[in-house]
Amino acid sequence: MSTLKDVAEKCGITVTTVSRMLNGRGYVSEKTKKKIRQAMKELNYRPNEFARAFSLKKSSFIGLIVPSASNLYFCKVIDLIEHYVSHHGYKLLLCTSNLEVKKEIEYFDMLSANKVAGVIIASHTQDIDKNISIDAPIISIDRVISQLIPSICSDNYQGGVLAAEHLIAKGCKKLAHISGSTFLNMDANKRYYGFKEVCEKRGIPHVVTDAGEEQFLSMRYESVINALLNEHTGIDGIFTSNDIIAAQVITICSKRGIKIPEQMKIVGYDDIDLCTIYNPSITTIRQSLNDICEYAVESIIHKAENKAIPSRVTFPVTLIERETT
Amino acid sequence: MSTLKDVAEKCGITVTTVSRMLNGRGYVSEKTKKKIRQAMKELNYRPNEFARAFSLKKSSFIGLIVPSASNLYFCKVIDLIEHYVSHHGYKLLLCTSNLEVKKEIEYFDMLSANKVAGVIIASHTQDIDKNISIDAPIISIDRVISQLIPSICSDNYQGGVLAAEHLIAKGCKKLAHISGSTFLNMDANKRYYGFKEVCEKRGIPHVVTDAGEEQFLSMRYESVINALLNEHTGIDGIFTSNDIIAAQVITICSKRGIKIPEQMKIVGYDDIDLCTIYNPSITTIRQSLNDICEYAVESIIHKAENKAIPSRVTFPVTLIERETT
Repeated sequence: MSTLKDVAEKCGITVTTVSRMLNGRGYVSEKTKKKIRQAMKELNYRPNEFARAFSLKKSSFIGLIVPSASNLYFCKVIDLIEHYVSHHGYKLLLCTSNLEVKKEIEYFDMLSANKVAGVIIASHTQDIDKNISIDAPIISIDRVISQLIPSICSDNYQGGVLAAEHLIAKGCKKLAHISGSTFLNMDANKRYYGFKEVCEKRGIPHVVTDAGEEQFLSMRYESVINALLNEHTGIDGIFTSNDIIAAQVITICSKRGIKIPEQMKIVGYDDIDLCTIYNPSITTIRQSLNDICEYAVESIIHKAENKAIPSRVTFPVTLIERETT
Repeated sequence: MSTLKDVAEKCGITVTTVSRMLNGRGYVSEKTKKKIRQAMKELNYRPNEFARAFSLKKSSFIGLIVPSASNLYFCKVIDLIEHYVSHHGYKLLLCTSNLEVKKEIEYFDMLSANKVAGVIIASHTQDIDKNISIDAPIISIDRVISQLIPSICSDNYQGGVLAAEHLIAKGCKKLAHISGSTFLNMDANKRYYGFKEVCEKRGIPHVVTDAGEEQFLSMRYESVINALLNEHTGIDGIFTSNDIIAAQVITICSKRGIKIPEQMKIVGYDDIDLCTIYNPSITTIRQSLNDICEYAVESIIHKAENKAIPSRVTFPVTLIERETT
């Protein structure tokens, strides 16, 4: 069996250069890379990450646990995390939990056995911290899991404030808030607190309704929206806790003959791609998802290198005005 | 350092049972799993997948290469592949190539170094087969990469036939087809051939326009759609090569005051979640994505076990009628 040294000799370069390319760190020219690949092919050399990881006692994998990859918000999270993980020469082990605590714990077992450099979790929160045992840094994004696990979130309270102020400035007299699921993402509840405080200060009547786990996974909120509109009259502004709900509010209003934005104004949350594809385009609270994901990956790498990282990080949000208001 | 044997002894069970749980294969009761986790924690035992993979010369990773994780179609692919990979006790290494050939080749280097059990590729096709060297089975889904790489697709030709026949049956007199990108996915071109053949047989005038790589990555097709409607008059039915284009045709028709389905009928492709969320809901050609992904994962595992697998597999498609027709 041929070795790394054989490959380097055949190319007339140092072992360090070959190793640099295989580890995806440091600069190696495209020409040299091509030469190395050719030599590896001819010598039938197979690099062995496992031997390396075995000796280092640490792999270059980073685990990401999300509830679902097909959710329009989480698919963006996956895309960004994968980008930054790969940019830093690490590889992404993707785990989708379907919100099953049992499955999440099993994923932690698997990630631990694979000696990941760290785990980014953007999924279920209920007691998961009490059930996991892993010798690698964990960071949560978009939600706070426990005091012991560092978290990176956007400013959810401010998001709620911006949404309520915008709807009131646009002339709304009675507001509603549809939350994603207060049970699943406690930090996002601050969106409601911000919204509520503005309504109370300004003397604007408001109602709130909460979607459940089932709606979250299926991305179908029609029953919750219809119930809200059936039970409460006079609502002329709705702030939804994600853009997927906002899109469905538009569809239901259209079916009920309620004109947007004349009779109903809508503010979503997240600013996923759907907001500009949809008709009308959706006013929303933009999370700096790119910053959050970049920061999460860098924090995991810093932590894996035993550097200190902050326990709580909050990124600002902005209101993006579009056709629904 | 404690061993697997110590854990088994502490639990009063066999090493095989502990190993079964760690590998995620075969049945282990929840009660026993809990006991094993507790013992591992107390003994500070860390299973080492690397040692195992090193001795087996093969890991339990399966690589998946897609152009983007945030594309509304590919996020569904990722979700399903991850589900089946994890169901079979394997783990998913996710690679998003952004359609860069260079990045795809680098991912193959990485997957090779990590001794993956196999690679599922649903991305760029141009000459990738000439540049890769990996000692593991490769399967392509949704596209045919080369004669040497087995592929699993849906019946794209039949999809085009169904779409054209449906639009004609609904009374359309002049049809258009907007393709995703003929350059990127050659097998999907058959959608156009099926569509064209029906139009020609039935004497229905038709035009075709092609979106590019840029539109595919950004999921923004407005310029292509507007150009089509500006350059051709009398079009009353459009068949789009994916549902994202169909959604944007709806938005543009609405802005232009063209009524759907009265003045314009639309048939999309794929049946992604957007079809039923959108207003109006989108008639589409449903791909059996679940079957395709399940079959792909099982084929990789069979191939990794040196079993024979077919070189070409085609799953049927169905037309799902909704409000756009």
